[in-house]
Amino acid sequence: MPYVNIKVTREGVTREQKSALIAGVTDLLFQVLQKPPAVTHVVIDEVDLDNWGLGGVSVPDFRKQNP
Amino acid sequence: MPYVNIKVTREGVTREQKSALIAGVTDLLFQVLQKPPAVTHVVIDEVDLDNWGLGGVSVPDFRKQNP
Amino acid sequence: MPYVNIKVTREGVTREQKSALIAGVTDLLFQVLQKPPAVTHVVIDEVDLDNWGLGGVSVPDFRKQNP
Amino acid sequence: MPYVNIKVTREGVTREQKSALIAGVTDLLFQVLQKPPAVTHVVIDEVDLDNWGLGGVSVPDFRKQNP
Amino acid sequence: MPYVNIKVTREGVTREQKSALIAGVTDLLFQVLQKPPAVTHVVIDEVDLDNWGLGGVSVPDFRKQNP
Amino acid sequence: MPYVNIKVTREGVTREQKSALIAGVTDLLFQVLQKPPAVTHVVIDEVDLDNWGLGGVSVPDFRKQNP
Repeated sequence: MPYVNIKVTREGVTREQKSALIAGVTDLLFQVLQKPPAVTHVVIDEVDLDNWGLGGVSVPDFRKQNP
Repeated sequence: MPYVNIKVTREGVTREQKSALIAGVTDLLFQVLQKPPAVTHVVIDEVDLDNWGLGGVSVPDFRKQNP
Repeated sequence: MPYVNIKVTREGVTREQKSALIAGVTDLLFQVLQKPPAVTHVVIDEVDLDNWGLGGVSVPDFRKQNP
Repeated sequence: MPYVNIKVTREGVTREQKSALIAGVTDLLFQVLQKPPAVTHVVIDEVDLDNWGLGGVSVPDFRKQNP
Repeated sequence: MPYVNIKVTREGVTREQKSALIAGVTDLLFQVLQKPPAVTHVVIDEVDLDNWGLGGVSVPDFRKQNP
Repeated sequence: MPYVNIKVTREGVTREQKSALIAGVTDLLFQVLQKPPAVTHVVIDEVDLDNWGLGGVSVPDFRKQNP
């Protein structure tokens, strides 16, 4: 029954990378908690850079300040 | 005060279907818990098929394997 | 594949009421979007009254102001 | 370590407004709980009007009924 | 219609601090986006220290490593 | 900047298992998307069995029907 939500910045995550995240998380839950893969759901949210804040500023500004 | 988040795959959910989900959930919370409809918020998230995983694979792959 | 998260205040929701919410939401997704019940997950979060805010105040204060 | 998720309707929120929300929330967590800004993450979700329900109807219908 | 979810570690957040967070976020949404306080909902989640990870370790371990 | 939320049923997940989930997810995000571990946050939610629904019934009832 696990449900996993992964939020990352929207920066060209490929279909292959998404599949790797889904497979990896599902396997992790099986290895650690013996959750059968059939009942594990994973949802990946891609968040626009301007909509993610860190250190009090948006990610684009954060990266300018922390190059 | 209820807040309900419904996540479904993005597959052409119509405005009428969204309204039906909103009305149905709001009514359910009134019927079961007597929550006044005025304070019930519903947010529907439509998730791209590649971003949803089930059984360790993305939904498109899952459907190929389970036709 | 739907995932539904219902947040309500923690005020003695019974097991029967939880079951009614789960059954009702699952049926709604079948009626409106033909989602098979087997893949619908529902998670109910009960939130302490002091941890829910509305109108700028916590729920207990809100109720005092709006009896 | 705080994580804040802000959901608002998608109605032309500007980059400056998003920055103001990020800065304001991060400062609030520092003022109230002394959380260092460096570890506070903020994610803003903009939700289509048809996907947000209030009072049992979508936001556009709610506004028609409550002008 | 805003909905704000604040997740912080469970470390003795007082009722007064929770009220300050609720009031502050609600005011911020009014100042920045003119959202009327009456429709802003805030939910505070307090997360056990062992259940929050940062830098690949739980918060207690993170603090031991970064005193 | 990734943020990962893992929801599992509350069934005696140990501190070691939580640490393994945190380490595993953080490593996965580094392997797949080169996200530096320092900015990856993981929050594990343990959900009471009666509060999780699957197939239209709560998890305890689901298990009785699918032994």
